[in-house]
Amino acid sequence: MPSLSPSQHLASGRTAFLFDLDGTLVDNVYEHVLAWREALSVIGGELPAWRVHRGIGMSGGLLSAELLRATGQALTDAQIERLQDLHGEAFARLRDRLRPLPGARELLAYLSDTGVPWAIATSGRRENAQPALELLDVPDHVPIVSREQAAHAKPDPDLFLAAAEALDVAIGDAFIVGDSLWDLLAARRAGALGIGLLGGGIAADELQRACPYRIYDDPADLLRHIDQVGIRA
Amino acid sequence: MPSLSPSQHLASGRTAFLFDLDGTLVDNVYEHVLAWREALSVIGGELPAWRVHRGIGMSGGLLSAELLRATGQALTDAQIERLQDLHGEAFARLRDRLRPLPGARELLAYLSDTGVPWAIATSGRRENAQPALELLDVPDHVPIVSREQAAHAKPDPDLFLAAAEALDVAIGDAFIVGDSLWDLLAARRAGALGIGLLGGGIAADELQRACPYRIYDDPADLLRHIDQVGIRA
Repeated sequence: MPSLSPSQHLASGRTAFLFDLDGTLVDNVYEHVLAWREALSVIGGELPAWRVHRGIGMSGGLLSAELLRATGQALTDAQIERLQDLHGEAFARLRDRLRPLPGARELLAYLSDTGVPWAIATSGRRENAQPALELLDVPDHVPIVSREQAAHAKPDPDLFLAAAEALDVAIGDAFIVGDSLWDLLAARRAGALGIGLLGGGIAADELQRACPYRIYDDPADLLRHIDQVGIRA
Repeated sequence: MPSLSPSQHLASGRTAFLFDLDGTLVDNVYEHVLAWREALSVIGGELPAWRVHRGIGMSGGLLSAELLRATGQALTDAQIERLQDLHGEAFARLRDRLRPLPGARELLAYLSDTGVPWAIATSGRRENAQPALELLDVPDHVPIVSREQAAHAKPDPDLFLAAAEALDVAIGDAFIVGDSLWDLLAARRAGALGIGLLGGGIAADELQRACPYRIYDDPADLLRHIDQVGIRA
């Protein structure tokens, strides 16, 4: 765990934002759910979609392990790797036109215009994130931390710690914005405050279990209430 | 509303079960979510998947109206009809192998073996329900009430009232089992106790808002706790 400097946490004018990507800024979680369920069934596992849904947001490796464990199968590294490949294939097949979540582009542009540092930290691989980054008009200078750049993905805090480091901000000065319990639990382990969004289909009542600082519907709703998280234009 | 006879409600030996189908007994809600989102986008509306998800379980007509209203579009009957057709096409394309939810077949067989009357009441059309009924080995004598047989679908109580009538049981003697808020709200309007299941991806915390009698993970979990709802083998 990094050392925190409590006296200066989240002081006005110092706040940074670390965003999850899938389900937080782009609307693709339901496709991920069906792709994981299908991948699992190919290797002989059966889990209903709602249980798969609750694992989305974890690293692919952890999710694979959790899904296989839930089906009562013993795990081999080869199985976990195959499951991730199968998920990638099924996801590519299911993928419809990629959509930003409401207000995603506007929120990011507002933070840039206001001089608030922000970064993206995704449990996915960089190449898989690329279409979303283009859709969201993410400027080249914004740090993108993807799966390859951390030893452990969410709910470990590594991805978010790396994103704060890339911005050269203290993690305690950052809000972590995500749609899954795993984002919000990673925020707590990182020593940052979490902000939950509903775009991944996990309801506010369920996200509340990870005790985020605030919960908003989507990036547009967060932008409308941006003064609640200490940003002043 | 039918008149109730409170003194005999849910007395041991009189209980009946009225089941919703999609998301309660079979695992197909996530496909419905993506199909509705796609249908809506074809006619120029955009709603994120998580918002569409919260409308699943309503009648197709009500859901169409709600989705269109949420996108700020004026509604015409022709648009609502077209949206339902588009949903049907997208759903057929997305539909993977149909899976029962865990314990669905076993629960229905147990009720039949124990002599507990049960029926199915679905907001969908009869022809759309047929594959699920075959998958679940539903015997021919079990009443199936589908959209065509009621003036109003959920959250109106009509479908469940018709199912109770088909079983010749008082609605107050029935448990209504469903995965959506709309099932559980229809149960309250019908004057029956609701049982929530999680197979549609709406979490227990969220279902709780409709105040069901009990919530279980899936039909297997309900079967393991069947004595909690007054069934004795």
